Order: sequence, then C-alpha cells, then structure tokens
Amino acid sequence: MPKMKKKTSKKALIQETAARLFRDKGYSATSMRDLAEAVDLKASSLYNHISSKEEILKNICFENAQRFLSGMEEVEQQSLSAPDQVRELLRLHITTAMEDATSVTAFNDEWRHLNEPDLSEFKALRRDYEQRFRKILEGGMQAGAFRRMDANVALYTIFSSVRWLYDWFQPGKALTAEQVEQEVVEFIMQGLKA
Amino acid sequence: MPKMKKKTSKKALIQETAARLFRDKGYSATSMRDLAEAVDLKASSLYNHISSKEEILKNICFENAQRFLSGMEEVEQQSLSAPDQVRELLRLHITTAMEDATSVTAFNDEWRHLNEPDLSEFKALRRDYEQRFRKILEGGMQAGAFRRMDANVALYTIFSSVRWLYDWFQPGKALTAEQVEQEVVEFIMQGLKA
Repeated sequence: MPKMKKKTSKKALIQETAARLFRDKGYSATSMRDLAEAVDLKASSLYNHISSKEEILKNICFENAQRFLSGMEEVEQQSLSAPDQVRELLRLHITTAMEDATSVTAFNDEWRHLNEPDLSEFKALRRDYEQRFRKILEGGMQAGAFRRMDANVALYTIFSSVRWLYDWFQPGKALTAEQVEQEVVEFIMQGLKA
Repeated sequence: MPKMKKKTSKKALIQETAARLFRDKGYSATSMRDLAEAVDLKASSLYNHISSKEEILKNICFENAQRFLSGMEEVEQQSLSAPDQVRELLRLHITTAMEDATSVTAFNDEWRHLNEPDLSEFKALRRDYEQRFRKILEGGMQAGAFRRMDANVALYTIFSSVRWLYDWFQPGKALTAEQVEQEVVEFIMQGLKA
C-alpha cells in the first residue's frame, strides 16, 4: 500500500489542530477563538476557511469514514484470503492512526456531538464498515483460517488495539512507522490464527 | 480472582456519573450543576459529598491507579510464569473496564486535567505500573514464552485492546462477562505466544 501523502493545505491544518483541541479540551469546551489562536489566524480569517466548529467536526468524521470505506471497497475487490484482507485493513487503521491526527476524532467519541441528520448518517456508515469487516472475520473462521470466536469481540478488539498509536507514535523514536506497523499487524494476526 | 464487589455508595455513584459526563461532554465542559442534575441532588447537597470537580477527578484517577498497582503487587508476589502473570493482569484490565464506569476516565485522557502536584504524581504511578508490566513482558520474551517484539508496542497494544469494553459491554447481551473476558484473554495471549 503506498504511503499516504501528508495533507498540507490550510484546511487540513485547521482540521488537524481542531482534532487535537477537541481531544485535549473536549469538543464542547473548544471555541472558534481557541482554534483561531492555535492556528495563528485572526478569527475573521478563520471564517474564510471554515464556517463553524460543527462544520469541522462533520468534515473530519465524514472524511475519515470515507477513507475507511474506500479502503474496504479496495480490499473487497481484490481476490484475497480473509487473513490477507484483514492484514490490509489493519495496515489502513494503523497508518491512519499514525499519520492523520484528525483520526483521533473519528476513533474516539467526538462524533457523538454531530447534529442530525449527520449523526444518523455517520452511524450508518460506521455500521456498514463494521458489518463488512465482521463478514470477513466470519468468512475466515468458516474457512478455518481464524480461530472460532465471537466476531464482535474480535472486531472491537482489533479496532481498539491500534488507538494508542495516534498519541504515541512520533517519527524519530526508536522504531520507524514501518516497524511499528509490522509488530502490531503480526500481534493481531497471530491472535486471530486458528 | 474473586469478582469485584459493585460499589454502591453515594460517593461511588457520584464518581461514576461524573466519569460518564466527562466522557460525553468533556471534563472542561462539565459543571458541578450538570453533575448535581445527573445524580438528582441539589447543588448544595452535592457539596456535602464532594468539594469540587477537581476532587472527583483526583479521586477517580488515584483510586484506579491504586487498583492497578495493587493487582500488580499481588501478581508479582505469586510465583507465576510470565504468561500467567500477563493473564492475571489482563483479567484485571478487562473486569475493570466492564465493571467500573470510572475507569474510562483513567483509561482515556481526562487525567491530563489534573493539577500539579497531582498530575506529576499520577504520571509517576502510571510509569511505575507500565515499567513493571514491561518487565514481565521482557522476562517472558527472554524465557522464550513470548515472541520477540518491541515491549512498548506489546504493552500499549494490550492496554488499548480492552478499551472498547467499558462502552460496549452490558449485562444481558448475547455474551456473559466471563465469556467476553475469556475471548479477549485468549486473543491477546495467542498474539503474544512464541
């Protein structure tokens, strides 16, 4: 899988900064003024890029949902074994957690602050992604490649197991991104193996 | 390991409710008034139980730290193999995530809102716990019971992998707490195995 290109536009910078503020202060306590200060813009200039905190949250949630659903589509279209499909999806989760600071917003609980109808739409996208991932896990169990276990437990343990990466991984530490990815993938894949 | 007794005192109820509010609204945006309403007390009565939001956060963080450090002490004092030690500690993480709603506060990022000197003290306790857990993992690798991998990656993947349980597990669902515990323990232990 090619390394994802780092987003560098102003809008991307605003979204990444907002994601960090949402995490540190909470979504409710973060104001547009806080955000303007953090990206070193006047509030009036910030509004040239983005109309509201709600819009940022919505962009972040739906862009992340789209990224995971596109990854799922790609994986489904190749003729891969269940373990290879899970391996590809795991890599997507891991690189997203390491390279895109906004993913913390989608991974954690901030999406709960979406307004309707966005909230329902976002939850439907999540459910869709989860169902397709669960189907792959169940297929792998039926084919004898994965241990028989509750598919939801497997699913949420996998999703959860990479959540620390957004916080911990910094380029220049003892391990490269590729090494961390490889270690985590191996850990999870061995845990699933029949 | 005996099942932990459910805390039922008023103070415990207040702490559990506060933990949920911190998660849903964020620590900064949660007021004592919100908390009083959520536990159905007048603000003046709430202050009979607890003096401030900071005190609740401090109690929650240090009670959880204490629970994990006691568990570690117990595990270290028995003459167990590294896999059995990890299994015991995993069970502690899992039952805590399923049975104690306040653990979400300690597991997630709210501890960052502690004031000094509490913040430094709490971070020291965490570091101590992590170092002792890492030592067990490294011992297991040296003894050939665990696969050789980066001990930090193993450690944080393990901690992270159970975080979804506080949110997902409800008594009465298809799986019992014991079944969920067993599935997750087996998943992680197999992932570690040499």
